[in-house]
Amino acid sequence: MKKNLLLTPGPSKVPVELCEVLGKPIIHHRTPQFQQVLKEVFAGLKQLIGTSSDVYLLASSGTGAMEAAVANLVNPGDKVITVEYGKFGERWTALVKAFKATPVVLKVAWGRAVTVEEIKKALAENPDAKAVFLTQCETSTAVTPDLAIIGAFLKATKVALVVDAVSAMGTEPVRMDDWGVDVYCSGSHKGMMLPPGVGVVAVSAKAIAMIDASTNVRFYFDLRKARKALADTDTPFTPAIGIVIALNEAIKMLLAEGIDNKQAYYLKLAKAVWAGAEAIGLGVYAQPEFRSRALTAILVPEALNPKKLVKTMRDVHGITFAGGQGDLDGKVIRIAHMGAVDEYDILAGLSCLEKVLKEAGHKFELGASLAAAQKVFNS
Amino acid sequence: MKKNLLLTPGPSKVPVELCEVLGKPIIHHRTPQFQQVLKEVFAGLKQLIGTSSDVYLLASSGTGAMEAAVANLVNPGDKVITVEYGKFGERWTALVKAFKATPVVLKVAWGRAVTVEEIKKALAENPDAKAVFLTQCETSTAVTPDLAIIGAFLKATKVALVVDAVSAMGTEPVRMDDWGVDVYCSGSHKGMMLPPGVGVVAVSAKAIAMIDASTNVRFYFDLRKARKALADTDTPFTPAIGIVIALNEAIKMLLAEGIDNKQAYYLKLAKAVWAGAEAIGLGVYAQPEFRSRALTAILVPEALNPKKLVKTMRDVHGITFAGGQGDLDGKVIRIAHMGAVDEYDILAGLSCLEKVLKEAGHKFELGASLAAAQKVFNS
Repeated sequence: MKKNLLLTPGPSKVPVELCEVLGKPIIHHRTPQFQQVLKEVFAGLKQLIGTSSDVYLLASSGTGAMEAAVANLVNPGDKVITVEYGKFGERWTALVKAFKATPVVLKVAWGRAVTVEEIKKALAENPDAKAVFLTQCETSTAVTPDLAIIGAFLKATKVALVVDAVSAMGTEPVRMDDWGVDVYCSGSHKGMMLPPGVGVVAVSAKAIAMIDASTNVRFYFDLRKARKALADTDTPFTPAIGIVIALNEAIKMLLAEGIDNKQAYYLKLAKAVWAGAEAIGLGVYAQPEFRSRALTAILVPEALNPKKLVKTMRDVHGITFAGGQGDLDGKVIRIAHMGAVDEYDILAGLSCLEKVLKEAGHKFELGASLAAAQKVFNS
Repeated sequence: MKKNLLLTPGPSKVPVELCEVLGKPIIHHRTPQFQQVLKEVFAGLKQLIGTSSDVYLLASSGTGAMEAAVANLVNPGDKVITVEYGKFGERWTALVKAFKATPVVLKVAWGRAVTVEEIKKALAENPDAKAVFLTQCETSTAVTPDLAIIGAFLKATKVALVVDAVSAMGTEPVRMDDWGVDVYCSGSHKGMMLPPGVGVVAVSAKAIAMIDASTNVRFYFDLRKARKALADTDTPFTPAIGIVIALNEAIKMLLAEGIDNKQAYYLKLAKAVWAGAEAIGLGVYAQPEFRSRALTAILVPEALNPKKLVKTMRDVHGITFAGGQGDLDGKVIRIAHMGAVDEYDILAGLSCLEKVLKEAGHKFELGASLAAAQKVFNS
């Protein structure tokens, strides 16, 4: 009878309606029936992220979508700017190196995201850089940059803006065409409320020109093949059929509620978590002006052993949080407020966190985080 | 109330027991709970394919597993032999070219598979070839080579044997270590009875040495990363959690029945289909000594419009067969006898095929294919 609640920032909680879809027999992918699903998924994704350009589906996790961006846009020796403010920014750098291009790493202090001024400066110093690779929601630190302002600046240049939106799609606002995002990479298992297995890549006209000009090595993630298949409402290789069918339903659920409403709701959940954490004497890691609405990294004193708290909450109480990654290992507890997570899930999470904090000897008034969150929910 | 029966050779029919598993909420992948699943999956796959070496899981379809083999084994400029006797053999050639190595294409007439003599000859003419890439079950033509004999020859050489077993795993016998297979690539959606989304790659010690020596471009499919993660019972990137959990159950189901028993059963189903096709005046495309037990390509006179028959069976009767690919487009109808397909499914398929053949004006005695199949089932 133990709870099984995922409050991790990917995979996130899969709602029962989508579990039901995932449990149905699948259909074959080279059929008009599946083409209809693909049509709806492509249209839905375009609406969700605000683009009229191509969207491709890959059978991969989010890193596969990121590799597709790198393999298709950069040539060996090309100079690009990779922006690092957490573990996933570092992944852009590693990918660019693997594909034998030259990353100029723009390091930003963890706890905040990059600003447009920093990007302007990096480009002024590297006028030959072809693209900027950044992270819309840096899941390791729970920060987000002002993508609209960064995009507006880059839109007027020849430099492509490539965005890791793996945990941002559905959770953080984006208007891809208006804002000037050239490649938008995501996956099924965060804001889309599904198990991992589907990668999403949307590309602008500027990106398509770069894809066609690139000489880099690519086959499975070759976006030229994806574009060719798209013309026949198809995918170049066997898609993750079951998850794609469920993705169609997930998108419909999000659009039916209104994506703006959902994102306003995630922001409310985020503010409730921040207030809850502060009410029991814990801090929020991300600087206030860069906080993501998709997840929060709660600072927990190392003396309380946050890794052990996460383990106890998961193994004893059935509520799964994420610990810290990289430099934040053993320093934070991360909680998602994305996808299907609602205010009652957040209350369950805070309640469980209070329980293990009290056991660990942390001093605070029981229920204080719940009351603080409740005030935000109902404000 | 229309039937939804997949007789396609991938995706294949997902049994209700596995649909139920796929419909359950998932767990997080970086947990002891998921590590236990991974441990069982790795052990089960090793038993299934007869290896004590490493098995890796990828979040990809079968082509991703094939790309992993190429990207990790060949260097730009390397000469390798790719064997073509259908569409998937041609994919090996395309992949090797994409990764800037030099394929020597060993073309074998469609309808049969390669022999060890042909491989010996190709290697004698190309003593500098580093590897042989072939297809254990060529899904486009329904043929299989004698892999044990080919492996025994290559095992004594420095040449690596790389096998596309996407539709062969679980259906065609293999003892990877004994037979001398160096890389065995497969996926979740054929013999494993699941939706697509998980790629499987098993590697020998000979292959591991090549992987470590390779300088080719790779990141998402970097098997060095997979080996490093395996040491911690982990995957380098987010796995397709839901399908991996179901794969564990699928392997248990197959091993509980006994994989030898299952494969003897698939051969019986295959023989029933061959007898059934012949009983209604249709041929079997593959030459008798090369016929696969995983699927059959039934030759259908072009005048009967096999593509239209497939469409009618699917759209009107809810039973999905596959048409022909490449050179066989509009010439064959393919039916799977793999994974969860049983004799009653085969009877449903033959019954539906008789129905549309009769409507198309083909002359035969109604029920003849069913009676012929029934005799084989009960022999």
